[in-house]
Amino acid sequence: MKFQDATIAEVDQVMQEAWQAFQVYRKTTLKQRADLMRAIAQELEAAGDRLITVAMGETNLPEARLRNERARTMFQLTSYAAACEAGHWLEARIDTAVPDKGDPDLRKLQVAIGPVVVFGASNFPFAYSTAGGDTATALAAGCPVIVKAHPAHAETSEIVAQAIAKSVAAAGLPKGVFAHVHGAGFETGKALVTHTHTRAVGFTGSYGGGKALFDWANQRKMPIPVFAEMGSINPVFLLPGKLKASAKELAAQLAGSITLGTGQFCTNPGLLLGVEGEGLDNFIRELGAAIEKVAPGTMLHPGIAKAYTEKRGAALGQSEVETVAVAAAPPKENQGVPTVATASAEAFFKNPLLHQEVFGPYSLVIRCPDAATLLKAAQLIEGQLTVSLMATEADLSEYSELAEAVQEICGRLILNGVPTGVRVSLSMQHGGPFPASTDSRFTSVGADGIKRWVRPLAYQSWLDAALPDALKNGNPLGIWRTVNNELTQAAL
Amino acid sequence: MKFQDATIAEVDQVMQEAWQAFQVYRKTTLKQRADLMRAIAQELEAAGDRLITVAMGETNLPEARLRNERARTMFQLTSYAAACEAGHWLEARIDTAVPDKGDPDLRKLQVAIGPVVVFGASNFPFAYSTAGGDTATALAAGCPVIVKAHPAHAETSEIVAQAIAKSVAAAGLPKGVFAHVHGAGFETGKALVTHTHTRAVGFTGSYGGGKALFDWANQRKMPIPVFAEMGSINPVFLLPGKLKASAKELAAQLAGSITLGTGQFCTNPGLLLGVEGEGLDNFIRELGAAIEKVAPGTMLHPGIAKAYTEKRGAALGQSEVETVAVAAAPPKENQGVPTVATASAEAFFKNPLLHQEVFGPYSLVIRCPDAATLLKAAQLIEGQLTVSLMATEADLSEYSELAEAVQEICGRLILNGVPTGVRVSLSMQHGGPFPASTDSRFTSVGADGIKRWVRPLAYQSWLDAALPDALKNGNPLGIWRTVNNELTQAAL
Repeated sequence: MKFQDATIAEVDQVMQEAWQAFQVYRKTTLKQRADLMRAIAQELEAAGDRLITVAMGETNLPEARLRNERARTMFQLTSYAAACEAGHWLEARIDTAVPDKGDPDLRKLQVAIGPVVVFGASNFPFAYSTAGGDTATALAAGCPVIVKAHPAHAETSEIVAQAIAKSVAAAGLPKGVFAHVHGAGFETGKALVTHTHTRAVGFTGSYGGGKALFDWANQRKMPIPVFAEMGSINPVFLLPGKLKASAKELAAQLAGSITLGTGQFCTNPGLLLGVEGEGLDNFIRELGAAIEKVAPGTMLHPGIAKAYTEKRGAALGQSEVETVAVAAAPPKENQGVPTVATASAEAFFKNPLLHQEVFGPYSLVIRCPDAATLLKAAQLIEGQLTVSLMATEADLSEYSELAEAVQEICGRLILNGVPTGVRVSLSMQHGGPFPASTDSRFTSVGADGIKRWVRPLAYQSWLDAALPDALKNGNPLGIWRTVNNELTQAAL
Repeated sequence: MKFQDATIAEVDQVMQEAWQAFQVYRKTTLKQRADLMRAIAQELEAAGDRLITVAMGETNLPEARLRNERARTMFQLTSYAAACEAGHWLEARIDTAVPDKGDPDLRKLQVAIGPVVVFGASNFPFAYSTAGGDTATALAAGCPVIVKAHPAHAETSEIVAQAIAKSVAAAGLPKGVFAHVHGAGFETGKALVTHTHTRAVGFTGSYGGGKALFDWANQRKMPIPVFAEMGSINPVFLLPGKLKASAKELAAQLAGSITLGTGQFCTNPGLLLGVEGEGLDNFIRELGAAIEKVAPGTMLHPGIAKAYTEKRGAALGQSEVETVAVAAAPPKENQGVPTVATASAEAFFKNPLLHQEVFGPYSLVIRCPDAATLLKAAQLIEGQLTVSLMATEADLSEYSELAEAVQEICGRLILNGVPTGVRVSLSMQHGGPFPASTDSRFTSVGADGIKRWVRPLAYQSWLDAALPDALKNGNPLGIWRTVNNELTQAAL
């Protein structure tokens, strides 16, 4: 199915409607927003098999994966709805007046920042797209959402958008609370990001795409925040004790993670590092054997398959890179070939290409001559979503400097686990130092994602009746508040 | 006293030391940081009369004001130290493992972002400068601080810097935890902001200065956040019922606020708006009479006095602007003349110059023909630190649309009070939508200012003994944490 790109005039119309809707939607109660989010989850389910079938056709993802992803998307909506109602994210604070010191009554809470433009991901047609985490958290915050459909799954996006629009209408909210715009070229996206009524941007995709949005947003007359998650090679440090004890198990675990979903996850482990020795040799051999047995998978779309083939080819073509193993089964059209290669630490330090993401079922093992070189590699690596340490307790004490250094380069630090599999919970940090994301201070997974779309507003000497419910003396919402520096649920 | 500008090589040396110190300082306990902050407060007091005398000489500010400002700066340090130890800002979250669902144990807290460069303000030599709010909150967060001394009070800054350095040494911390750099030209500042080891920037000053730092920071290979507070005209809306009841009291209150500290506060009320009628006429007359009686004051330095004279002249020179009153006493050299002018709403809509800040004891009264025009003005005004409504309860219901519209353009909303006087407490929001500040999502006053210098880090399946204390099962710090979505101080 073909969709027409929105014109600049249409983008303007959509943004005007969003701005009008914002004046209404930001005043909705937490319950109204949570109800809307739960209704959207139900509509996603009600979209039934058709939604799955269309998504399968557009993304080549298998049915079971898509059914799981829809369930995850529904869980995001309903769990963020619960967080929305619990109201911790409002960060309600009250400092009562101290007349002797001339201090006025002062109360503060987080308020919606305004219309949010969301660019969905190609690799998660549901969970990081039209009704995904960005949309769900923005709706919780009180912000209208404008989704730019991903051209690789535009019809899937259209069905999801209809489910959202139906929920918005059923709730009696203005149509402008949610808008859906098509645009295969960059012009539509640029028009959305640079529109005067846009207040923030969410994006999941490539470095090139995210950085362009970031630059446009900062060059506006009124700069706005951009939360772009731009990929990561998710380094895994294999420490000697662990390698000695469990080389084979580690190899099986990592082969699974490298090839999961044909390697098309932003948390795919694309870089493995260890100290040279028998343990690492065994691991590389076992990993190669495991990778050979994995069948090539069809990638999301021909563009991604082509990019994988090219980037994989460029990496393997470096004189310092040695291919360890390639999947034994021959690939069909648009399939990605599971591949593991290896290089020395020296090559890694010299060749920037070895630091680059090869999006797909590919990973590179870096052999370090000693612990100091492993540490140096950790200090050199750019910002990442995750870092994993495969380590025994003894490894952890011996490599404590490494364990500290890696905290500087990631948002999530994993012990003896693979980076794929992102738990949807409040403690999740999905985002890392640049260039993993444009703003390491926020997460795109978990209810803390709501914080991306709000700003604090303080009320000084305000009338109780005119305050937002969250700040009223009686605490009618029953939320936790910080009153004169103490956390409490009590009324004033 | 003359100070030498730091060379690029010296800046690099300072930043290398800050980076090394960061590796130690970020691991300090909350108590160590709080102790350091309290020690700095004591050293500021120990700097005694000399500090006040030097500051008087450099800034022309009166002794009483400077003694108050030092006390306020000490209160900032000690109250933020208490907030540092209380640990709410760590936002510790724990989600325990759910093996049935395959969910790993996940724990998250806020960690220091890295070395912070601080540019102090000319108008607050203590509270917003060398040991001011930016420095105090960054030290609380675990970040080394590099202060670029304001050239207008470089010797004051030097004395304060020595007090901080002495406290750092006494605490046995690396020297690089705090550095002080002189630089009258822009080159030093640019070198600091663009240095590879700089992780964030705090600034208080002009739009031109703040925006330059913001642009440099975003054009880096690794962009970094800039928290620039860049001024504001702090609109005051005078509603009819209140004007009718209290025109004279309002005039006295506002004349005091407009001329406080010779108008050299970022919260100075530079724009007053009301609906035409007897009430507004009375108010304007009374305000003029009050302003005539205020003596001109000596401004912070000749550059600021010159800028005030020029900008005031440009504003009064607009054909649509009518001078209401000027201080009766003639100004001496470098003094700012208290001035009130007026213009129609039509002129305000047409002439962008009337929206610009005139830094000093100047304010412009805009006369609106009706309530709809007042609302239109509110919707048109750019981002501000504060908005004040002077209103009776009846005004508030009648002008509810206005009361909502102004929430979009400010960080702090005041009822029947003047914007000058910024309470130092957790509920304060000092920062507003662009161009009042570069990032409306953060405050530069109050302990929430600590949040500017941190980012979240999640630990997955980590060993209890290797976790930061804030996340250990036993909760040895006794802080509030969100455990499986519930706030608690209990151990796991």
